[in-house]
Amino acid sequence: MIHDFETKVFKKEKYNFGGMDEYIIRGGRDLFPLLPKVFDGIKVIGVIGWGSQGPAQAQNLRDSFENTGIQVKVGLRRQSSSWHAAERAGFTEANDTLCEMYDLIAQADLVLLLISDAAQAQIYPQILPKIKDGATLGLSHGFLKGYMKAYNDCWPKNINVIAVCPKGMGPSVRRLYEQGKEVNGAGINCSFAVDQDIDGRATDIALGWAVALGAPFTFKTTMEAEYRSDIFGERGVLLGAIHGIVEALYERYTVQGMSPETAFKRSTESLTGPINNIISHEGMSGLYNKFECEDRKVFEEAYLATYHPMFEILWEIYDEVVSLNELKGVVMAGIRHDRYPMGKIDNTPIWKVGEKVRAARKSLHEYREVDPFTAGCYVACMMAQVDLLLEKHHVMSEVVNESIIEAVDSLTPYMHSRGVAYMVDNCSVTARLGARKWAPRFDYLLSQIAFPAIDTKSVKDNGELDAFRNHRVHKAMETCAKLRPSVDICVL
Amino acid sequence: MIHDFETKVFKKEKYNFGGMDEYIIRGGRDLFPLLPKVFDGIKVIGVIGWGSQGPAQAQNLRDSFENTGIQVKVGLRRQSSSWHAAERAGFTEANDTLCEMYDLIAQADLVLLLISDAAQAQIYPQILPKIKDGATLGLSHGFLKGYMKAYNDCWPKNINVIAVCPKGMGPSVRRLYEQGKEVNGAGINCSFAVDQDIDGRATDIALGWAVALGAPFTFKTTMEAEYRSDIFGERGVLLGAIHGIVEALYERYTVQGMSPETAFKRSTESLTGPINNIISHEGMSGLYNKFECEDRKVFEEAYLATYHPMFEILWEIYDEVVSLNELKGVVMAGIRHDRYPMGKIDNTPIWKVGEKVRAARKSLHEYREVDPFTAGCYVACMMAQVDLLLEKHHVMSEVVNESIIEAVDSLTPYMHSRGVAYMVDNCSVTARLGARKWAPRFDYLLSQIAFPAIDTKSVKDNGELDAFRNHRVHKAMETCAKLRPSVDICVL
Repeated sequence: MIHDFETKVFKKEKYNFGGMDEYIIRGGRDLFPLLPKVFDGIKVIGVIGWGSQGPAQAQNLRDSFENTGIQVKVGLRRQSSSWHAAERAGFTEANDTLCEMYDLIAQADLVLLLISDAAQAQIYPQILPKIKDGATLGLSHGFLKGYMKAYNDCWPKNINVIAVCPKGMGPSVRRLYEQGKEVNGAGINCSFAVDQDIDGRATDIALGWAVALGAPFTFKTTMEAEYRSDIFGERGVLLGAIHGIVEALYERYTVQGMSPETAFKRSTESLTGPINNIISHEGMSGLYNKFECEDRKVFEEAYLATYHPMFEILWEIYDEVVSLNELKGVVMAGIRHDRYPMGKIDNTPIWKVGEKVRAARKSLHEYREVDPFTAGCYVACMMAQVDLLLEKHHVMSEVVNESIIEAVDSLTPYMHSRGVAYMVDNCSVTARLGARKWAPRFDYLLSQIAFPAIDTKSVKDNGELDAFRNHRVHKAMETCAKLRPSVDICVL
Repeated sequence: MIHDFETKVFKKEKYNFGGMDEYIIRGGRDLFPLLPKVFDGIKVIGVIGWGSQGPAQAQNLRDSFENTGIQVKVGLRRQSSSWHAAERAGFTEANDTLCEMYDLIAQADLVLLLISDAAQAQIYPQILPKIKDGATLGLSHGFLKGYMKAYNDCWPKNINVIAVCPKGMGPSVRRLYEQGKEVNGAGINCSFAVDQDIDGRATDIALGWAVALGAPFTFKTTMEAEYRSDIFGERGVLLGAIHGIVEALYERYTVQGMSPETAFKRSTESLTGPINNIISHEGMSGLYNKFECEDRKVFEEAYLATYHPMFEILWEIYDEVVSLNELKGVVMAGIRHDRYPMGKIDNTPIWKVGEKVRAARKSLHEYREVDPFTAGCYVACMMAQVDLLLEKHHVMSEVVNESIIEAVDSLTPYMHSRGVAYMVDNCSVTARLGARKWAPRFDYLLSQIAFPAIDTKSVKDNGELDAFRNHRVHKAMETCAKLRPSVDICVL
């Protein structure tokens, strides 16, 4: 069973997620006293890189390991532009917590490799041999595993290799950890994977790492399943699909005669605000149940017209990720960026209107209209992603985190505060490339297939609505909700 | 030298294409008497498949080999929906020119494998062993070579393997051949490649095949260079880019306040009509020289803003093709199509407006306005494609055919007559997939990068305009123009 595991330190618990049993570890600050035992013999944790996850994890771990004698250090190239950012966060050479990257890799007992995917692919042959005999390599993403698989390469035999993958971007990992000081258990869920275990300790080190990051609960996956669902998910409903959906909706609403401001509000503002907020607290079924009469019909028609085109394009993305095409594409893009750096997307009319709308807000959540058409398109995409991942045999925890929880609790709150385009332009290179690559495809499929079906009144229900209403994912979401305190992320 | 070759029958000629020497064969009906000598020992030519190239090549070859004793037969699966179409074109079991596919493959001395790329990838392991010892396998596209390379497979050692690749879709190959009956030499240029030559005859068989198809001139390439430039080209300016460019322009013009009809005319109608017509007769520099005063400024600004975003996305496409990602993607799409057949794109507002505009035409070429902004964007894309292919070391003949001639003389005339969406929806599966995949990316890059640069007056000329004005491609186009009679394709 992919989701079962043995731990000598933590208490694993069996939960039923919508009909599927999984073993998980519940987190919380009350478990921090266990950490020194788990990390026995680990004197230095080396956090390599200062991108999205680096600053969050380095700071969370430093806080969690305070007064344990375990040192958390940051490793960067000396000429890195992040050197000063790390210093501002208190990691300095003076207090021996900021080192040249390769020096720290050679020194650390646990090496957390959090540099960008493209950089990992480029320099891992220099990094791996420098890791100490018997040490543990930790990743927060299965990308490198996929990349090495594509080129038939293997781990050195003398190290543990684990992954702990927060189901949210770095800033959310840090922000919710800080909020967790007041509400024990607030944080970002993590998956973990053990890819190579040379001393029988790999699982507990991974679990301890997740607990120290502040994960409310931690579930097991494999590195392959992780990079597939993760790279797929951010191209899908987490980032790429949202971008494409709101572009298509904005254009549709504008062509229908709405003013740019109204069109923006009914597409983007409604989606990143109230729609996500309701899903976060009451799930997709909770959102659905709010619609009555005509609104329900509008939601249902949008859902039915959208579900299959979304499933189709999501399936294509999944195929491209599994075939490793997508990873190779990211690496090739890295080479092109030397000549053509990635451009910004936020200069188009829709995002200029968005700036105005946000500037005119009196408060972050003042817009409360739940547009049923927007909701129908968005939920259809979310459900298509859930169905596809289940069809591809991902565990339910991974499915709901990569399709729903990460969207509503980590990413869209930032989109609501700062704009979808800002979010796309400021996430990891791999995610950003993916969002820019696939968003236009979502947009075109909605415009070419879904909307014409609605306009020509040729939308049919072949059981899709019943499948949605009775979907096991709703129960799974309820179970997840019980596993963590209900804390809305506070976006600064 | 990639472009040199030895022929025992035809007269090769050296031409200078914009500073680059190439050997070519000029075609023409006056060469038909040479064909029996070239095809000595070849009794049966088996044309396998009835898609885009199949009907055109089978009919052209039948006409060219009339009264030579060489039989041209068509091979299809018996249950194929094309069986009756082939019969309607005069290929029947009664006259022994229509056979079950595998029977014909086993019987033919020259097997022209013109089934779809996806089908080739799927069934080539069944096909190749059935080809007669010493026979010749002919392809009209390097796709299968790329596919087999991706999976480390090789040709059987006992056959010749050649390719003759018309630089135009099947209907154009047929239509211009028919027009060539009145104007000797009218036709579609071909490239040829010899991948395996077991008896020293492969080159002449390939050249004879090209001459019999009606190619005005035939130049040498390799199968790798062919599939790279061909799969790339149709994703680029031949199909995908045109689709994306007119979508972006239509939206821009509409947002600027034009009526849908005017926006359609100034984007699509202008591009597929007068702009392409001028390029066909006078080249890109001829088009440029027509613009004066303000119009020239508009063209230049559009060109400068567009060139680099187009180069960037074209480079990405090229990388994806060379890495074989794109071929693998086509094969994976074939599997998905069993559950989700490819949809049509022609139901969106822009193409509905297009239908109206075409229906209101009094004659095909009544719209003569050359929109300088549309022209600037389009020519910038064309030039970016030329520059990229030259940078990747393709011979100039291949570059101009895949970037300019095939566009203006084969594809856009059909787009002008029947619509861009119709063209996308009715080309080969590989091309159709590519156009649908990449058009949205062209659209988004124009909208996100090129247009905002114009609107914020931040367009710069870092020598791009001089490079365009003095480009060697203009001379190469002049040389090409001399190599074939000036015949506008007559689209029925």
